[in-house]
Amino acid sequence: MCVAESIRAREASILAANRTDVEAARRRGMKESLIDRLSLSEKRIEEMLSGLKEIVSLPDPVWRSSEVFSLSNGLTIQKMTVPLGVIAIIYESRPNVTVDAFSLALKSGNCIFLRGSSSAVNSNKALVAAIKEGLAASSVSEAVIELADSESHDEVRTLLSLRQYIDLVIPRGGKDLIDFVVENSRIPTIETGVGNCHVFVDSSADFKKALDIVENAKTQRPGVCNAIESLLVHVDIAQEFLPGLYERIGGRVEFRGCERTVAIIPAKPATEEDWATEYLDYILAVRVVDSFEDALSHIERYGTRHSEAIVTEDYEHAMAFVRRVDAAAVYVNASTRFTDGGQMGFGAEMGISTQKIHARGPVGLSQLVSVKYVGFGNGQVRE
Amino acid sequence: MCVAESIRAREASILAANRTDVEAARRRGMKESLIDRLSLSEKRIEEMLSGLKEIVSLPDPVWRSSEVFSLSNGLTIQKMTVPLGVIAIIYESRPNVTVDAFSLALKSGNCIFLRGSSSAVNSNKALVAAIKEGLAASSVSEAVIELADSESHDEVRTLLSLRQYIDLVIPRGGKDLIDFVVENSRIPTIETGVGNCHVFVDSSADFKKALDIVENAKTQRPGVCNAIESLLVHVDIAQEFLPGLYERIGGRVEFRGCERTVAIIPAKPATEEDWATEYLDYILAVRVVDSFEDALSHIERYGTRHSEAIVTEDYEHAMAFVRRVDAAAVYVNASTRFTDGGQMGFGAEMGISTQKIHARGPVGLSQLVSVKYVGFGNGQVRE
Repeated sequence: MCVAESIRAREASILAANRTDVEAARRRGMKESLIDRLSLSEKRIEEMLSGLKEIVSLPDPVWRSSEVFSLSNGLTIQKMTVPLGVIAIIYESRPNVTVDAFSLALKSGNCIFLRGSSSAVNSNKALVAAIKEGLAASSVSEAVIELADSESHDEVRTLLSLRQYIDLVIPRGGKDLIDFVVENSRIPTIETGVGNCHVFVDSSADFKKALDIVENAKTQRPGVCNAIESLLVHVDIAQEFLPGLYERIGGRVEFRGCERTVAIIPAKPATEEDWATEYLDYILAVRVVDSFEDALSHIERYGTRHSEAIVTEDYEHAMAFVRRVDAAAVYVNASTRFTDGGQMGFGAEMGISTQKIHARGPVGLSQLVSVKYVGFGNGQVRE
Repeated sequence: MCVAESIRAREASILAANRTDVEAARRRGMKESLIDRLSLSEKRIEEMLSGLKEIVSLPDPVWRSSEVFSLSNGLTIQKMTVPLGVIAIIYESRPNVTVDAFSLALKSGNCIFLRGSSSAVNSNKALVAAIKEGLAASSVSEAVIELADSESHDEVRTLLSLRQYIDLVIPRGGKDLIDFVVENSRIPTIETGVGNCHVFVDSSADFKKALDIVENAKTQRPGVCNAIESLLVHVDIAQEFLPGLYERIGGRVEFRGCERTVAIIPAKPATEEDWATEYLDYILAVRVVDSFEDALSHIERYGTRHSEAIVTEDYEHAMAFVRRVDAAAVYVNASTRFTDGGQMGFGAEMGISTQKIHARGPVGLSQLVSVKYVGFGNGQVRE
């Protein structure tokens, strides 16, 4: 825990560096919601440290095996987990990611290369200096963490070409950042984060469950990727369900609806763009659909393969939804907000992967490793 | 088994198409070893079909789970395997890969896009036509398999940019092909195949085991990726070990040695290039090393992270070797030739992955899937 101690010991200088970043951001006119993400406080540093301690306390994900078997010739083979090597993370303003990414990488035996945003440069430098100071007092090399010393766009391009030095790149931020990294990387990437998630309220839905789930998935924390952006309601129950929903959350949430929705509750008319937008805000697009199949088609067309939920009491629809909807997580009668490493019991995460290769869903310690087959023999040869 | 039947029914036309390819290749002066890889025969078609039947008989890799858990609120979460989607394979001349890749892809619920080599174009067309004919008689769409209708290099570039249509690209062939795909792909790839593998005979090695293992790893089938290319011998036993090895395999294998090797057994002097070459032939580079550490350094520098073996009776060296050597498979006192899906009991494979992301080692059915988290609830929301 040398690192936690050195972060605490350097708390004043970290907060001072963060104030410099926050003041510069405010001068440049950064939105207050982003200023909030950028800002550190004593309380937030304590939260960082408790996150760090939680990761330290998780089981070591390296050199574990769930597959050990013997061939008929007596050769025993173990499929063991091993570190990936060097992980690079390219992230936007939140400085707590600096500490999270470091702790996840180190716990999984990897080195971490951090490329933060220019708006957080002073905060990140202060945090990395504190981490390195802590490592210097430990048996682990300070070289396991490095911060990019420039925030230029060209440097990101260069970084993305260094396949011989970096094993995995994780972009963490908005859609533009993720698309840029995925389009330009020569290094394997894990796409994280964009979530245009839906709840579909089926004709057989239990209204109490549906109201609870829609309210939770939309309003419990709208700025995160596993919150919902659109609601699909079966035409048979729309007239009955929507007014209750409006009563429940209409005071806090702006509705944008299809024609049939607008005829039932107060809502702005939704445009084509609304169905494809990740608002990350107190806005909900609502579409009345004619059938279960139409709901699936809408999700197939507009969803980002993150988290999708159905509220239904129909067994066949429940089973068909979880099989047929293509997403990292699919739920029956539960909020989409459970797509989260902490909620699922895996601990902290680098993000939520929406790709199919290597890792899908929460990217925690178990996803930051590779494997190695180890054979223990006594002279076996192949026949 | 409609597909096996249609391949058998069209056997004559498949063999005729293959003869066209073989004659054209011979006219262009293709090496006989490559002509052999390109050629089909009734026997080889029977082998293809038994491979197909073996894959059909393997357990379904889709919608399986090794992780089902419940949260304290009663939400049950299952981490289920799901197909990847569309897999593209870019491969060199062997037409049997056409049938293997199709069967592995279909069994794992995926579609397969095949881009074979121009030298096998008629064989591949005939095989794919037979497969499609078989599918037409089944409940599976013929569209699950498509063959690229051009063999141009530009088309491969285009293919590698189609991230929205293809989920995974597997290059299977020589180093140049693999490097081209990895360098140019916008789609996640699995690198397969290049194996500059080593056996290190430690000072404590049991000579009988060492001789058996080196002979097997070098000569049992030298043209494959898990055969060894270089031998490292501890200086303390080189004088005693090498003559016995030369006696055992010197008649079949050309030795290329370091200065100390050349002083002990008949061998051409090895150049720097030899240490880095995947001969795929009856040639063995031999280096006498001063220590266990020097053997590890050599493997670190020249190895391709495929398969590495140590022959030792020293417990600490055995354990250090398997932990510290970075490769898809590491062996103590066993041949490197066991890095193979069939040998390890996983069935057929798309190739041997030497990368760390998604799949490492044999790429069989279990590696051709992604995952999906499925939550079954009864109204759970996040607190």
